[in-house]
Amino acid sequence: MNTKRCGAQTVALSKPPSVAGFACIGGKLESEGPLKDEFDELSTDSFFGEKTWEKAESVMQRRAFECALSKAGMRPESLDYLLAGDLLNQCIGTSFCVRDFAVPFYGLYGACSTMGESLSLAAMLIDGGFARTAAAMTSSHFCTAERQYRMPVPYGNQRTPTAQWTATAAGCCILSQDGDGPYVTHVTCGKVIDKGITDANNMGAAMAPAAYDTLRAFFEDTKTAPSDYDLVLTGDLGYLGHQILVEQLLRDGIDLRQNGGDCGLLLYDREKQDMHAGGSGCGCAAAVLNGYLLRGMRAGKWKRIVLAPTGALLSPTSSMQGESIPSVCHAVCISTEKGGM
Amino acid sequence: MNTKRCGAQTVALSKPPSVAGFACIGGKLESEGPLKDEFDELSTDSFFGEKTWEKAESVMQRRAFECALSKAGMRPESLDYLLAGDLLNQCIGTSFCVRDFAVPFYGLYGACSTMGESLSLAAMLIDGGFARTAAAMTSSHFCTAERQYRMPVPYGNQRTPTAQWTATAAGCCILSQDGDGPYVTHVTCGKVIDKGITDANNMGAAMAPAAYDTLRAFFEDTKTAPSDYDLVLTGDLGYLGHQILVEQLLRDGIDLRQNGGDCGLLLYDREKQDMHAGGSGCGCAAAVLNGYLLRGMRAGKWKRIVLAPTGALLSPTSSMQGESIPSVCHAVCISTEKGGM
Repeated sequence: MNTKRCGAQTVALSKPPSVAGFACIGGKLESEGPLKDEFDELSTDSFFGEKTWEKAESVMQRRAFECALSKAGMRPESLDYLLAGDLLNQCIGTSFCVRDFAVPFYGLYGACSTMGESLSLAAMLIDGGFARTAAAMTSSHFCTAERQYRMPVPYGNQRTPTAQWTATAAGCCILSQDGDGPYVTHVTCGKVIDKGITDANNMGAAMAPAAYDTLRAFFEDTKTAPSDYDLVLTGDLGYLGHQILVEQLLRDGIDLRQNGGDCGLLLYDREKQDMHAGGSGCGCAAAVLNGYLLRGMRAGKWKRIVLAPTGALLSPTSSMQGESIPSVCHAVCISTEKGGM
Repeated sequence: MNTKRCGAQTVALSKPPSVAGFACIGGKLESEGPLKDEFDELSTDSFFGEKTWEKAESVMQRRAFECALSKAGMRPESLDYLLAGDLLNQCIGTSFCVRDFAVPFYGLYGACSTMGESLSLAAMLIDGGFARTAAAMTSSHFCTAERQYRMPVPYGNQRTPTAQWTATAAGCCILSQDGDGPYVTHVTCGKVIDKGITDANNMGAAMAPAAYDTLRAFFEDTKTAPSDYDLVLTGDLGYLGHQILVEQLLRDGIDLRQNGGDCGLLLYDREKQDMHAGGSGCGCAAAVLNGYLLRGMRAGKWKRIVLAPTGALLSPTSSMQGESIPSVCHAVCISTEKGGM
């Protein structure tokens, strides 16, 4: 029993599922960033041909899903599970995509940790013998997120220095029980951490303690250090949150300074694009994983990485009621080799 | 491989997890309904001592969680996973409860299907060897749901005959790899179905096709009929939705007329309380399962039941943009015996 538990909070998959296909879609600003060549499709139309931004977000998910399926050589009907969610109220970016496909679906809400959460659950459903294949997917859209969480976009309000830029992007990763990798070898499910930050324009500081908690558990459970990996990336902590995380982990002797990073710092060019504290949104980690990272691993650039996207579990209502920001972080280890550590 | 698949869409758990503890909490109208004696706690204060209804909903979840843990003789730290979600934007009913406990947490969004979804994933995580124990939880609150989805409560708008009443209730079920049952023996993950219903005051009609799709798959995959169970209950289809489901399944020769029902028809008294088309909300199925049903199974009243809660995956934004209502239904089979069918 529980031979798959590895330490207090981590699971070591006994038959690590393989990445069968992956894809990412981005918008205009993503097409001007340093990772522009890593996308499967980029659109300069923020409506993606639709009448509303919410429908545009669904279209991004649909295209990412169809592209990942196509690259995996699969049809939707052959998929055992789809696990997905997004930032919108009631996750409508996801549900209005998924209704077009007859796929068994578990809806998730992990805010910007959703790529980590969906990949974790997809990997465990396959490793547990419940599925041969499962897809993990998420998206975000700058315009849907802005008007839902902050201000109507046409209002043109000023952004604070700690503010991040919600990526207009979607990413989908399809896992299979068979394949040549990369493989999901370990998953660490995070706890909800709330250190009392109340500034909804400083998500990095609110989420860093969750990343600290989950990464500390991951390294302790697997008896490894950041130097055992080619990359250790969070999802969208941004400049400030990343600094806090590096400092917090360093106090425990865990040194992220060599190979630690954040997807929100990779997606845009700090000098030319000025996204303030960096990129954010579910789509940020999803696009970086399902483009830059998995392409790089397939090309032999990296052998073993940790991806630990964080999510801020607030709503405008909770902020207006004076609440602080609970956060969560889910980590996955992806390796070109099936073997343990 | 995949020895746990049972037909196209269903999983037969190889070592069915046992219910270790369960609890449900309700509000004033629930305390006046026919199931009032099945609750662990009932409050006539819709604020549950808090200043806002959203915070009240979190308190309901906390009390349900603590009560279920206590009845299972467990402490939160000993729990391997908590899977939960609710109807509120960004699921804040759940996140503001969970932050008080150091438990690995996967957030879900399945609207009113969340009790089925959380129980399904908790059962698979245990059966797959990833956990010894896992909790499944959800809630809803009439006042938070009304002002988010429809009208401010003090406005006192008229309700249409097809409208349902969102239950003010929370339920939590803790599963364990060991125990004396009842056991979760089968789970069927639903597909997102959208038959074009656009009336947000007629959720029963919107969700019935999803219940039909999942229950048809469940009976086909398990090669059983409704008569093989003591009860086959949906979550909150209400009077109209339940009638549609019964008619649809009957065309396929699946007869729910003897032992089919709906939690939304059990929670309130139709004559005395007049909830129009019946009860609804995540908390409806959660309270009926974690009170009436599991108590009844422990008392020997029923041996084998199917619970299939449905969720309507709409948001006020999608309704205002003229969209129809996608729905999903997740079924679980719960039995006092571990054995197969």
